[in-house]
Amino acid sequence: MVKYLNQKEAINVDLELFNEYKFSVDQLMELAGLSCAHAITKCFPADRFGRVLVCCGPGNNGGDGLVCARHLALMGYTPAIYYPKPTAKPLFENLSHQCQRMEICRIDECPTVETSANSYDLIVDALFGFSFKPPVRVDFVPVVELLQQTKLPIASVDIPSGWDVENGKLNDCDLEPTLLISLTAPKLCAKHFKGKHHFLGGRFVPPALQRKYELNLPEYPGNELCLELETHK
Amino acid sequence: MVKYLNQKEAINVDLELFNEYKFSVDQLMELAGLSCAHAITKCFPADRFGRVLVCCGPGNNGGDGLVCARHLALMGYTPAIYYPKPTAKPLFENLSHQCQRMEICRIDECPTVETSANSYDLIVDALFGFSFKPPVRVDFVPVVELLQQTKLPIASVDIPSGWDVENGKLNDCDLEPTLLISLTAPKLCAKHFKGKHHFLGGRFVPPALQRKYELNLPEYPGNELCLELETHK
Repeated sequence: MVKYLNQKEAINVDLELFNEYKFSVDQLMELAGLSCAHAITKCFPADRFGRVLVCCGPGNNGGDGLVCARHLALMGYTPAIYYPKPTAKPLFENLSHQCQRMEICRIDECPTVETSANSYDLIVDALFGFSFKPPVRVDFVPVVELLQQTKLPIASVDIPSGWDVENGKLNDCDLEPTLLISLTAPKLCAKHFKGKHHFLGGRFVPPALQRKYELNLPEYPGNELCLELETHK
Repeated sequence: MVKYLNQKEAINVDLELFNEYKFSVDQLMELAGLSCAHAITKCFPADRFGRVLVCCGPGNNGGDGLVCARHLALMGYTPAIYYPKPTAKPLFENLSHQCQRMEICRIDECPTVETSANSYDLIVDALFGFSFKPPVRVDFVPVVELLQQTKLPIASVDIPSGWDVENGKLNDCDLEPTLLISLTAPKLCAKHFKGKHHFLGGRFVPPALQRKYELNLPEYPGNELCLELETHK
């Protein structure tokens, strides 16, 4: 069975990709965000889920969200981005700029549950990734509450935001995504995922690294950028 | 009909993607090389064309080739790389390093026509791109001659190497790829392409840039990274 990584392992795999394998963040974020967009096309077709609110956090998970939004726009969706704490690094500024020049709307205020229900068909949760340690910072409390309370389907990038990376939900009110896209390899919290679709994306892990961490990744079919994993229901 | 770019337009579109839209070379090279790998999976399935010689030139076309080789390796092919003049820039050194750590074989001598016929099923031509001006530099004469003389199918990245970017073949002996993958938009030389498959890849051109250059790109189906264009036979 595919390995579920603890937080330390997830951090180490990531570090090795950059330090040992010399991938750039630009490269892997592009592939990760693209694979998220592909998983979304499979679960939420553009003709029924065209209006997508993409909620981006301050770190690499948020960067994956910005990339995902751009590819969704190229694939016939109408994304809007909520990105309350833009990261002051050139890569993130450029990803933001690309979205803006792609004519993707950026919203400054966190929408209410009701506004979201009227304005969007799907929410992408790209707030916090595998480095997350609670508590949620004050800037993100409104959007985390929106994700907890909305009836819209949610697609979470790598980690359902607010969940403990290893133990899953911390509170009963924590969000329940419909789609979880695990990147590189699933993290332990994914064992507690009860939603409909669990996908694996980020088809870039070198075989030697897969062996070293005994990731036991399933084989991606053909040229697919993502694949559906079995869920633990 | 889709627009065929002259050399000046191709250079300007590229410059705008970097300077105006703030894409990094890492990002677009990753997407371009990945789309080449996808076009190859569609025309040359791994079970019959598994052994691929990827010939990489000194510029961005060669970088696309390195990315393509890495993704082919992840998709069940066994690529080998011939890269006679490695570019002394961090991005290219890293792309090379990634291939090496992916256990992709690098060959130092240009193989003969006969050796290639016995060792490979397909050759990827990632030597020269849309900035090419003849003549071919001396370091690349042997590999260009291999491409001209081989009976193996050739997949050319963006420009069949040695062709004039606008006028196509310069000599009767110039190579004839079976697959041409035009990146971003086809260049004028593609009108002279007589091979079996002409694909368009590089699904990253922002709509405003498409309009500015009146690219009139066909619509990519679903989440596809490449699409087949009609050929002029």
